[in-house]
Amino acid sequence: MSLELEDLKVVALAGGVGGAKLVLGLDRVLKPGNLSVIVNTGDDFEHFGLSISPDLDTICYTLAGIVDPIKGWGLADETYQVSEHLKSLHSPTWFTLGDKDIATHLERTRLLREGWSLSQVTRHFCQLWGVHSWVFPMSDTPARTLVNTKEKGLMSFQEYFVKHQFQPEVLSLVYERPDGTRVPEAALKALETCDLVVISPSNPLLSIAPILNNKDLRNLLESKLVIAVSPIIQGQALKGPAAKLYKELGFEPHAKTVLAAYETFLDAFIYDVLDAPDFENEVFKDIIIHKAQTIMKSESDKIALARTVLELGLQIMEKALR
Amino acid sequence: MSLELEDLKVVALAGGVGGAKLVLGLDRVLKPGNLSVIVNTGDDFEHFGLSISPDLDTICYTLAGIVDPIKGWGLADETYQVSEHLKSLHSPTWFTLGDKDIATHLERTRLLREGWSLSQVTRHFCQLWGVHSWVFPMSDTPARTLVNTKEKGLMSFQEYFVKHQFQPEVLSLVYERPDGTRVPEAALKALETCDLVVISPSNPLLSIAPILNNKDLRNLLESKLVIAVSPIIQGQALKGPAAKLYKELGFEPHAKTVLAAYETFLDAFIYDVLDAPDFENEVFKDIIIHKAQTIMKSESDKIALARTVLELGLQIMEKALR
Repeated sequence: MSLELEDLKVVALAGGVGGAKLVLGLDRVLKPGNLSVIVNTGDDFEHFGLSISPDLDTICYTLAGIVDPIKGWGLADETYQVSEHLKSLHSPTWFTLGDKDIATHLERTRLLREGWSLSQVTRHFCQLWGVHSWVFPMSDTPARTLVNTKEKGLMSFQEYFVKHQFQPEVLSLVYERPDGTRVPEAALKALETCDLVVISPSNPLLSIAPILNNKDLRNLLESKLVIAVSPIIQGQALKGPAAKLYKELGFEPHAKTVLAAYETFLDAFIYDVLDAPDFENEVFKDIIIHKAQTIMKSESDKIALARTVLELGLQIMEKALR
Repeated sequence: MSLELEDLKVVALAGGVGGAKLVLGLDRVLKPGNLSVIVNTGDDFEHFGLSISPDLDTICYTLAGIVDPIKGWGLADETYQVSEHLKSLHSPTWFTLGDKDIATHLERTRLLREGWSLSQVTRHFCQLWGVHSWVFPMSDTPARTLVNTKEKGLMSFQEYFVKHQFQPEVLSLVYERPDGTRVPEAALKALETCDLVVISPSNPLLSIAPILNNKDLRNLLESKLVIAVSPIIQGQALKGPAAKLYKELGFEPHAKTVLAAYETFLDAFIYDVLDAPDFENEVFKDIIIHKAQTIMKSESDKIALARTVLELGLQIMEKALR
């Protein structure tokens, strides 16, 4: 009996909006419970005393089907009563706080203060929201990514990304915990026992690199079947500062740069059909180079790309067994 | 030229809803800026990570004319989007959190974390809301009142008051800071320079006693003209647990018990007309005992009682000058 696509046990590494698209596709294709997602928390921060985890919320809201379908983050049918009153208090308004979203932040803050881990809080929310996949923060202790900018010095990720709309020129990225994150045990266990690891088309520097900043996790990746999907198409990111950041840090903004970043543990790399002219070979240093339609607009696009990734994984597994 | 009522410089000590009624009357009668209010913060607490100051909010919202006119606390025209979503997260719902009110708590929390004092935050809000009177927290450091209950042990004031609806039998009240509160310098200055101190008809044990838990403030009261209004009428509190608490702690629930609590520094005591049969004399240990209509339903009731208090103060001052 051959393995079917939906039987695969998959771990996805993901950031926010971009990664959530492929993660949704994987969740919809795989059997319930067969997908685990390890999510960047380098952009977590405290604002107004609230513990906010933007990428975790984006992934969970997306899988729960309650995400704002236009923005791709935040909740659908959101209201802004609190924000309106905050404005009247001359409060900073650069970070959008919808009312329902605030409830999520309040309850997370309360539970963390009661001694719950971020993993436990995330699991609790997923259960309430009927999410079947397993969503893990990349770290159960704060492990923030700071952005060292030329003109304004060091700032938190959200200040850089939201407040300053990623306009400041970046000199370097600084991890709050250079000694590494604390990946939840259950996430490492999921990695150990999975058939396939998928690196979502999230920002390699800001979303994926912080997840990889852990020795145990990186070591595990070396021994696993790993497929990455490029977030860079024709030298551009579909959303966010990936291409701009590559330039500022001295890299060519190109899918090949993404490939190079992951090459030590990568088995296959999926780039967009639009980049086809730039890739001559189907194999690069033993890594299978695979062309696909990676722009995901509709849910069927997301499911199609997920199937492409899973089929490629299955093919590689079957070849290895022969 | 004789002093007019509205020229008096007055400091009021107050708790929440009951005290706010007389405070509003005083604010409306006195010249703008002539009233200072020192407000109980013994019932302040942190909930969902938010710094909440219920009595300060009640006083400020009342003076700003934005208080919910039915409840006497919280904001008028409030919405409950956040609370609705909190319910769906199976979050504790015993403390009502209106959306606009949450904005106040969020901004206070943010400013406190930026290093502002509670006095500064309160002044800032009052300026935004057009409040002319000076509102001070009784302490710029947390100084919480804990309630030691027979069946459930020690609990925070809000747990006792809101979560358990003041039903648990109380063995004692415990001040988090037995060494005293940190009264803001500007509040002490207002006390030093005022003509008259008014103790509002707030709960003597839960709202006024915590304010009096400061040597400097108490010493100042000894040298000032002080008038108190009884919150106990015919052995009952109009609102809240004052009478029940008196019984549990071994006191008779009666206006005379209130008088006794303040007698060391009191110059005059106002009790309700309904209690007239219980008071034989017009003077008790040099304290003038004055009968008045103290139940304040309408704004004109509040203004009328404020005028009564101020007129009594003026009479005492004029006698002293003769």
